[in-house]
Amino acid sequence: MTPTMARPGGRSAKVTAAVHRAVEELLTDGGSVTVPRVAARAGVNATSVYRRWGDVAALLADTALLRFGTSGDVPDTGTLRGDLRAWGAALAEQAARPAELALLRAAVTAGPADPGAPDGAESARSACLAGRNAQAEALLAAAAARGEDTPTATRVLDHLVAPVYFRALFGLPAPSVDVLVDRLLAQAASSPPG
Amino acid sequence: MTPTMARPGGRSAKVTAAVHRAVEELLTDGGSVTVPRVAARAGVNATSVYRRWGDVAALLADTALLRFGTSGDVPDTGTLRGDLRAWGAALAEQAARPAELALLRAAVTAGPADPGAPDGAESARSACLAGRNAQAEALLAAAAARGEDTPTATRVLDHLVAPVYFRALFGLPAPSVDVLVDRLLAQAASSPPG
Repeated sequence: MTPTMARPGGRSAKVTAAVHRAVEELLTDGGSVTVPRVAARAGVNATSVYRRWGDVAALLADTALLRFGTSGDVPDTGTLRGDLRAWGAALAEQAARPAELALLRAAVTAGPADPGAPDGAESARSACLAGRNAQAEALLAAAAARGEDTPTATRVLDHLVAPVYFRALFGLPAPSVDVLVDRLLAQAASSPPG
Repeated sequence: MTPTMARPGGRSAKVTAAVHRAVEELLTDGGSVTVPRVAARAGVNATSVYRRWGDVAALLADTALLRFGTSGDVPDTGTLRGDLRAWGAALAEQAARPAELALLRAAVTAGPADPGAPDGAESARSACLAGRNAQAEALLAAAAARGEDTPTATRVLDHLVAPVYFRALFGLPAPSVDVLVDRLLAQAASSPPG
């Protein structure tokens, strides 16, 4: 889930890190992201960026993969309701930041095989989805181990992650995550699985 | 909601229609969409396409606006459950077609002011959202007029449109729309508004 770790280290890894940082800084500043601007900000030659990533779309997708493709740590509040609320709030907060919203958009647009992506790398889109699914599964497994009733991970994606990402992608205000979680848990207790 | 109608008619309108058709055909064929390929398929000069739309991203966004920006007709089955099921199924079917999924992705990525867009045109993204919201409002108003209890339009977006579009955008199989609608109506009857 952290593809840069598998790439050659040393100078190449430093260039990769500097380029990703430059992409995020340009997105945060709200400026347009072009290969020459990224290269200038990262202090590398534009030709190196073109050679490594192909074009700006592939570079954005690769940066998105690093940002959204990790399944990282999940909250541990002691209850499923608390964990889902904390996790959902963190997803909404991340998706509200301009740089990360731009990367989420890049992930959604990215093709399954981005030019210049390392061999065997998942696309940013499927990595983002796999990351969220793994986090949902981890929260649900912890809740099940505590003896709590749990919805399916699919239901968590459909009724918590989907509204958070849909609203971010379409430019709507973030939803009330607490209300979404309450609905999800009320549903899970009363209606058929799916 | 049909911006081409407001553009100059005659030759210009014919070129616009031919270019949009060429974009959709290329997307359906699964080939890459470039300005020269669109121009060749549409039988127009590439320079005309560049002058009118700026670049391929703006052209995709404009085509997406036409495809997703309309609020069009909504089903009238006599019950809110039936209307939401038919409408949700149509949205899922549309989002599953390769050309329309590519346009939905273009809409999500499009900026609020696409270069080359006609003056005052809404972006494809906000037009898509406004179109879905107007359709939800129309279904809900018809149901309210029949005396049915109704959820809010926001809730329809969060729990029906969001999972349908989220799954399409992230490459998951379409959800069971009937199950989503059943949950939405069960929720609306039992939990706090929002």
